[in-house]
Formats: sequence, structure tokens, C-alpha cells
Amino acid sequence: MKQSVCIGIDMGGTNTAFGFVTKDGNVVAEGNISTTGHHNIDEYIKRLTLAIKEQWGSINQEYQITAIGVGAPSGNYRTRSIEESANLPWQGVIPFCDILEEIFGIPTFITNDANAATLGEQIYGGAKGMQDFVMVTLGTGLGSGYVANGRLIYGHNGLAGELGHTTAIKDGRECGCGKKGCLETYCSATGVKRTAIELMATTNTKSELRDIPYNKLTSKDVAIAANNGDKLAQQVFQITGEILGEALANTVAITGPEAIFLMGGLTKAGDLLFNPLRKSFNKSVMFLFKDCVNILPSAIDGNVAILGAAALAWSEIKESNNG
Amino acid sequence: MKQSVCIGIDMGGTNTAFGFVTKDGNVVAEGNISTTGHHNIDEYIKRLTLAIKEQWGSINQEYQITAIGVGAPSGNYRTRSIEESANLPWQGVIPFCDILEEIFGIPTFITNDANAATLGEQIYGGAKGMQDFVMVTLGTGLGSGYVANGRLIYGHNGLAGELGHTTAIKDGRECGCGKKGCLETYCSATGVKRTAIELMATTNTKSELRDIPYNKLTSKDVAIAANNGDKLAQQVFQITGEILGEALANTVAITGPEAIFLMGGLTKAGDLLFNPLRKSFNKSVMFLFKDCVNILPSAIDGNVAILGAAALAWSEIKESNNG
Repeated sequence: MKQSVCIGIDMGGTNTAFGFVTKDGNVVAEGNISTTGHHNIDEYIKRLTLAIKEQWGSINQEYQITAIGVGAPSGNYRTRSIEESANLPWQGVIPFCDILEEIFGIPTFITNDANAATLGEQIYGGAKGMQDFVMVTLGTGLGSGYVANGRLIYGHNGLAGELGHTTAIKDGRECGCGKKGCLETYCSATGVKRTAIELMATTNTKSELRDIPYNKLTSKDVAIAANNGDKLAQQVFQITGEILGEALANTVAITGPEAIFLMGGLTKAGDLLFNPLRKSFNKSVMFLFKDCVNILPSAIDGNVAILGAAALAWSEIKESNNG
Repeated sequence: MKQSVCIGIDMGGTNTAFGFVTKDGNVVAEGNISTTGHHNIDEYIKRLTLAIKEQWGSINQEYQITAIGVGAPSGNYRTRSIEESANLPWQGVIPFCDILEEIFGIPTFITNDANAATLGEQIYGGAKGMQDFVMVTLGTGLGSGYVANGRLIYGHNGLAGELGHTTAIKDGRECGCGKKGCLETYCSATGVKRTAIELMATTNTKSELRDIPYNKLTSKDVAIAANNGDKLAQQVFQITGEILGEALANTVAITGPEAIFLMGGLTKAGDLLFNPLRKSFNKSVMFLFKDCVNILPSAIDGNVAILGAAALAWSEIKESNNG
């Protein structure tokens, strides 16, 4: 009998990567195409289909494809569509699952990238066996996914998990979402950069970062400088960790998770981020949850996004088999 | 065949009320005893058992008892115990479910009062058929319960849903939990009183409330004054609604509910509270959730707490029958 695999598709603003993933999380074949540079969505889908079928052919003897999972910015689990994404080259509502099901003839599921990462952690990562946990992705923005009673919270409109757009600082920084003071304007790659710039304006602390123009400065520069002993850069991570710790303390009081996992570029800063974060969390969290919640880096290495998208497919198949 | 009923027990700091509740929410018999005034927990349980058996006898011909549900301050669903409650006359960890199961020989379940109210709303109230909603109880404190994917979120340690102890105002009012600025220090009966007192200190606004000493002032006095046109009292509700609206906007971004229900004494203030609350919520909520979430008063009249406790029993039986 052929072994089952699910296809995980990670649609990013620049690249679309996909892989054929076994239930155990082995990627037996993979490929990718550019997300941009197509005349329209139909052309993109044609290219993607071609690339997938090519890889499929290479493993066809050994594996059968059971389902497809897609992680995409603004991917909505409930409507099965990509909705008005600000980070993709096409607009409007795209019924992506229906289109792929028509082409491949197998069940297809979609959700946003942070939710896919959450399922990846649950099925293949550090959250195996956990019924209640939170995933926070620290990339350009701040994404999050919540699992309660063993199941991801999609919410009524399919768009739950927007921790990045809860208010961290009243009347604080302008956010791309139209609000002010959103958590992701402080705790994300962009947030780290903005904090560094703000400290350049408000303090006289010497820093190697003062030679880098705004448009060139990245959170990685800040992390490197901090590791080199740059006081201003270190203060940036101190502030970032403090604000994130307070936000996580609030979110813990609501959903009472066993653990919070962090992933994304910013977590590579390691103790620079985790030390002030854990300290601030412990100071802010309600006594009922003290010493109950682990704050951990994601346990997944390798292509998290593909694994996460495949995890969506695997978890949906399991649910439908359970009735 | 006899009709099934569950016993709902609402254990309050002063009184313990109980009722025999059909699946449709009819209370076919009820009774109550004092929570206080017993030498110890054993004596209290003896009295409660006696009172329940007395009522049981009166309906025994027609009904059979299927299960018991208990709503109690610090009732922990996972440990099945009452844990170190500040609002009950006994200390320590009391394995309340085990004790009642031993006595009555039927399955017994416990949770805290806000969670019981949430289940009551789900099974008998305005949240019937909803998969994702939030319940906020505005009493002496602020309690809350979250339902996602159709199931109450108990959290890993059984104590999720502490919205009242998320930080509303950084370094704000001292809270009984040891933190500062907790939501319930602003948005609760006690919070309303504190805001009134604060406005007396910080403004020169004339008010009939200035004749009432701190220890006598209640949120009801503030509501009556506001309805009489008292400007200071009206401002109190304005501030209360604004802070609660911001907090609910944050919580909506996390769990994406279809509706938020409010119950408890403070909601009797009606538009005084709901108008500024809805306005603030709409201003603060992330665009993805705009016009998606109804903020409503609880649809349950009658003995909410008994119904809620019985709802716990009914929902647990249903779950165990579903496997």
C-alpha cells in the first residue's frame, strides 16, 4: 500500500514553497515558484499546479496524496478564501480552496500563516499532546494562534488570533491596521527598528546604529549591535521584551495555556529577548497562572511554514474521520 | 418513563441555592441554605445534603436525577475542587465533586461562577447555537467565560477566563489579586464606586454622591444619581464603558467571538453603560472584527446561577455520551 502524504503550500509575498509531507512530518519532495511576476491569479495557479504535478510525478510510485493545506496571508479558514491580502500581488476574494480542489480532486484547506505555524507546532513541534497553548510569530508583524481544548480557535469569522492588533500602548505608534499602539508596532522586526529609532531621538546613548539610515536599518542590525555590547541596541530588546511580557501575561489570563511558543526571526536574538520577556511576564501575570506557563522557542526547525500548512491538512482529515 | 433532571448548585459567599433543572431549563424544585454559620465544611455539606434530599423526595415520583453541576467561587473544573477561595468561609482545597458523588452516587461537576453563567447562556440563553462567544459578569468583581469551537475554555490549569485581571491601566488601581490596574478595579460594581470617588477628588463637579461616605456608597447609588441627571455619576458610567469597550476590543481580536454577553447588577444601568461601551468598542476594535460582534445583555432571567450550574451538568453528560 502506498504511504499517504499531504501537500503543504506556504504562500508568501515573494515566494510560494510547497512540500509533500508524511504524517510524521517528513518532507519527501518539495518545490517552489515565485509568487510575484504573474499577469494574474490564474497564471499563478497554472504555474503552481505545474510545479506541484512535476514533483508529484517523482514520488507517485511510492506515495498517495490525501489532502492539501495552504498557509497564506489573509487565508480565511471559514470562507476557504484568500481575502483582500495587503501582502499578495492580487486583490479581492479568491476562493483558493475551491480552485485547487477542482484541479487536484482532493480536499483542500486554508488558513493564515500564523495559524498554520500553530498547527505545525501542535502536530510536529513542542506542543505535541498539549490541549491549550499559544503560538506567537515574530516576523515583520506579530501573528498568533490559539489552541484551546486541543483545537485551533478560528473564531466566528475565521480571523481570530490577532494578538498583534491588541492595544499595547494607549495612543501609541501608528499601525498599518489603522489603529494606534498595536502590539506589533512594538514587538516585531519592524517594532524593534522603530524602538531603536525612537531611542536615537530620545536619548544621547552612543550607538553604532546611528550611522545606519532608517530605510536600511533592520532588526538584525539591532540584534548584532546588542550582541556587540551596544547599549542602545540592548535597551531596544529590553523594551521589546518588557512590552511583549505584559501582553502575554494578559493573554494567559484569558485562555490559560500550558505554554507559549515564539517563532520567527526575532527569536534568534535568544536571551536578549527571552530574558526581559520572561522577567516582565512573571511580574505582570496574575497569581493563578504564576509558574504554570512555559515561554519557549518553537521546537521546529526546517521548513516550518510547509510543515504548518501540511499540519492543517492532516488535522482536518483527522477531524473529519472522527466525525 | 421518568423525566431527567440535573441538580444545579450555586454556592455564593452568603447563600447556597440549588434547583432541579430539566434539559429545557425548567426548574421543577428548588431550595437554599446559608453558606455561612456552619462549624466546618462537613457540617455545611450535611445541611446541604439534607436540603437537597428533602426536595428530591418531593419530585421523586416524576423525575430521575442524572447529574449534579456546581458553580462556586474558585471552583476548578479540572481538579474538581474548590481551591483556596477568598469568598467562602472555609480554606484549603476541598474535593467537592468527590464528596457529593460519594453521597449521591451520580456524576458531579464543578466550575467557577462565571463559567457556569457562560454555560447557562449557551444552553438556555442568548448564545444558543453559537460556537464562539464571550460572557462577562459584572458583579462585585469582573468574571468572564470564553466559548470557542462550541466548548468552554477551561485552560490548562482549569482557571482560564480571568479577563478581570488583565491590565486595563498600566500602574493603575490596586487590585485584590496583588496586581495594579486590573480591569475589574474599573469595570465592576466596586470599580464604579472607586471611579465615583476618584472624580469627587479630581473634579469640582457637583454631585449628590458627595454626601454619601465611601463605605456606604454603592454602584446602585451611582446608577440612580446618573438617571437623575447627576453629571458626575453620568461621567462615571462614561468612563466605565470606555475602559470596558477597549478591553473587549482587545479580547475580540484574540478569540474572534460572534457576540459578547454582559450580565450582573451593573448591566441594569442599561444605556448608561451600553452606549459608551459600544462606542468605545467600535472605536478600538481592529477593522477585521468591525460590525461582526454583538454586545448584548444576557438573555436569561430567573435564577441564572442555578441554571448555569445545571447547564454544566447537562453539557458534561452530553459530552460523555458523545464519546
